[in-house]
Amino acid sequence: MNHDARAWAEGHRAFFEEKLRTLVELPTISMDPSRGPETEACAEVALALVRHFGGQATLLRVGGKPYVHGRFGDPRRTSVLVYNHLDVQPAEEPEWKGEPFRMRIEGERYLGRGTTDDKGPALACLLAIAHAVRRDSTLGFQLLWEFEEEVGSPHFSELLREQRTALGEVRAVLVSDTLWVSAEQPSMDVGLRGFQALTLKLRTADVDAHSGVVGGGAPNPIAGLARVLAACFDASTGRILVPGVREGVVPVSDAELDLYVRSGFDVERFRSTYGFRRLMASDARELLRRLWTEPTFEVHGISGGYQGAGIKSIVPAWAEAKISLRLVPGQSPGRVVEAIRRFVGEIDPLVELVPLGSAPAFVTSVDAPECKAMDRAAERVLGKGLALTRGGGSIPAVATMAETFRAPVLLMGLSLPEHGYHAPNEFFDWTQARRGVELYSAWFEELERLPGRV
Amino acid sequence: MNHDARAWAEGHRAFFEEKLRTLVELPTISMDPSRGPETEACAEVALALVRHFGGQATLLRVGGKPYVHGRFGDPRRTSVLVYNHLDVQPAEEPEWKGEPFRMRIEGERYLGRGTTDDKGPALACLLAIAHAVRRDSTLGFQLLWEFEEEVGSPHFSELLREQRTALGEVRAVLVSDTLWVSAEQPSMDVGLRGFQALTLKLRTADVDAHSGVVGGGAPNPIAGLARVLAACFDASTGRILVPGVREGVVPVSDAELDLYVRSGFDVERFRSTYGFRRLMASDARELLRRLWTEPTFEVHGISGGYQGAGIKSIVPAWAEAKISLRLVPGQSPGRVVEAIRRFVGEIDPLVELVPLGSAPAFVTSVDAPECKAMDRAAERVLGKGLALTRGGGSIPAVATMAETFRAPVLLMGLSLPEHGYHAPNEFFDWTQARRGVELYSAWFEELERLPGRV
Repeated sequence: MNHDARAWAEGHRAFFEEKLRTLVELPTISMDPSRGPETEACAEVALALVRHFGGQATLLRVGGKPYVHGRFGDPRRTSVLVYNHLDVQPAEEPEWKGEPFRMRIEGERYLGRGTTDDKGPALACLLAIAHAVRRDSTLGFQLLWEFEEEVGSPHFSELLREQRTALGEVRAVLVSDTLWVSAEQPSMDVGLRGFQALTLKLRTADVDAHSGVVGGGAPNPIAGLARVLAACFDASTGRILVPGVREGVVPVSDAELDLYVRSGFDVERFRSTYGFRRLMASDARELLRRLWTEPTFEVHGISGGYQGAGIKSIVPAWAEAKISLRLVPGQSPGRVVEAIRRFVGEIDPLVELVPLGSAPAFVTSVDAPECKAMDRAAERVLGKGLALTRGGGSIPAVATMAETFRAPVLLMGLSLPEHGYHAPNEFFDWTQARRGVELYSAWFEELERLPGRV
Repeated sequence: MNHDARAWAEGHRAFFEEKLRTLVELPTISMDPSRGPETEACAEVALALVRHFGGQATLLRVGGKPYVHGRFGDPRRTSVLVYNHLDVQPAEEPEWKGEPFRMRIEGERYLGRGTTDDKGPALACLLAIAHAVRRDSTLGFQLLWEFEEEVGSPHFSELLREQRTALGEVRAVLVSDTLWVSAEQPSMDVGLRGFQALTLKLRTADVDAHSGVVGGGAPNPIAGLARVLAACFDASTGRILVPGVREGVVPVSDAELDLYVRSGFDVERFRSTYGFRRLMASDARELLRRLWTEPTFEVHGISGGYQGAGIKSIVPAWAEAKISLRLVPGQSPGRVVEAIRRFVGEIDPLVELVPLGSAPAFVTSVDAPECKAMDRAAERVLGKGLALTRGGGSIPAVATMAETFRAPVLLMGLSLPEHGYHAPNEFFDWTQARRGVELYSAWFEELERLPGRV
């Protein structure tokens, strides 16, 4: 048995690539209700992966949706629980250079939807656990793989309520679904924004009509929604104009911002990664404040009317804006929805608001010994301590797990900004996978050495 | 030879239905560049139709696009020129109850894209001409069928310039591409609005990005366009807010509005035809003023971002608003474009304006003997004189023909509001087709009796 995690990882590179391909080529798009069969097939693959390394694999099911649970070692042991998700974003962007659900390997890169978010990191976690089990770690391990993260984990709380007793004592939770500052600067998130998704739909007629025949007499629902959106949000400053939405937001302290600025976040790298033509702030401090500690109001798309080639001279019958807000500590998703409903209703009573998924924001303390252990592990394996960052994104399961297990939740992922979370041509790479196996293995060793419940 | 136009029409009902089916089942969508083969096939069918009734058919071509010209009788004769178009709008609306490019017959209704706009009326015109030729009318006849009307007739002026001499003397032009007030009230348009189509595109990044990772720091192009649109147009009042766009607009006189109000336009029928949830004005006079004599600013759709099921939490890289303005006499399409370009550029210099097709507005005088002859023909055939209306739509070829031939252009179509111009489940019906054959035949007889150039 080789105790060296790096050699273990390298020895499993072909295995990693083969299994990542299998996972990526099952389009587990959770927001597409027709992808049930691919989701079930992917859960079967995941169960087999757990069993391959000697784990006890169980298919859990809540609200019709599968969850894969894996347990390694004596179930009476206090364990480390590792969370990943195996569902993915859609991949309909025209910019994809290859078929998004056929994995391509280019050098050490793995291209395809879900490679970095979150199938690749899930496999890296599994390899690290398998390595710890092989070297007879004194820790117990549990895996929990979800298939609904990208739609706001609507059944996750119910799952944890049902399984609370069966899951037993959990010493720490590792969530591997976040980004480093850069390949040179590993980082751990000490907080996540929450979110509230919703649609605003304005139906003004039964059917689309000829804009010459009815134009001037008929209301235009896209122009109507544009008016509502412009009233809700000032796109030029980024200010949310809906009264009440910011209720409860506590400004972040200068000391905390200092910490984030020291993370090594680079404005120009951020800009060039996405090719932004402009940014809402030009200096790192203000940009990080907005990205990590401020709520947002984002319009993802407007449906209705005509989106094809050229112009179709119609007055559309309806339009629907797809919107989500990122939330920060102090904001309540429910209060946010009601504030928007009230405000929009005053502007145009025909606009219908439908709330979709939501999650509260999350902040953790970095003083827990389990967190300090991760920092030491990074020093050992990567030669560099962790930068402390916040994640601007949302992982709904995080708050639920923190509350359920009353244990530290470590947001220690493996993705890099250039990997393209939710973007076309998403990829993961072997270096990050291998570093992940090493980092998590080292963390497990550090945990073994801690006094306490092990 | 039967001189009775009604019997002639009824005798050709099966022919009409067969040929309408052939035309409708060729999807001649002019705004779809991939429909070249269907367009060429449709032009061949049209040539054969002209020849079927003994006409001389010629395929003209300008800028790569086909036009079908038909001539009946001695080419040295002064003739009546009949204009129709055989291209159609797209038909991607989910509300279609059947395949839009398979013609269905339900009772006397013909359902399918292009049945009423403008393939059915084109066939009715052909039958009326064929009838006149059979009874040895002293008139000459020309047909001109276009395949680019729905994209603003970009090559029509050039066609008329090239063919001016060959087309010879034209006494009157009949354009059969407009709507009656209702099935009970035939009407002739004495004016048309012009139009200017354009797109406003805002690109803020190279790629879509995760809204958690970049949200708050990245500009949102859909929210940005919504802000620009709300600044250009007040959707709640219908007011165009761009300085300079209304330059040259002359308010319509009370007397002219009186005339339009007398047309029998019914607000409730207008509302219920399209199922409008509200209207921009509640009384007929104000509604007609807006529909027929005022410019509009219409948003047809917004591309970019995500339009699928659920929410995709991205900050889109770009967004494009598809817009057109209807114009009234006094407005210049070129000046309108420049006013919008200037205004939008001040709000957001990243927004790119691309002008698309355009046409000036058109007004005619109803005092010409050829117009009075149409009124008499309606009295004889339909038992009712014509209401005088304006068309809120635009037929770019009309102004070009009026200028080229210096002859009255009669906007005397056959469609009804309920037929669904540019709408899903478009249809035409046999009664209107038959009435068209009778009405045009009677008009030809009236023209023969007029003193003058025949």
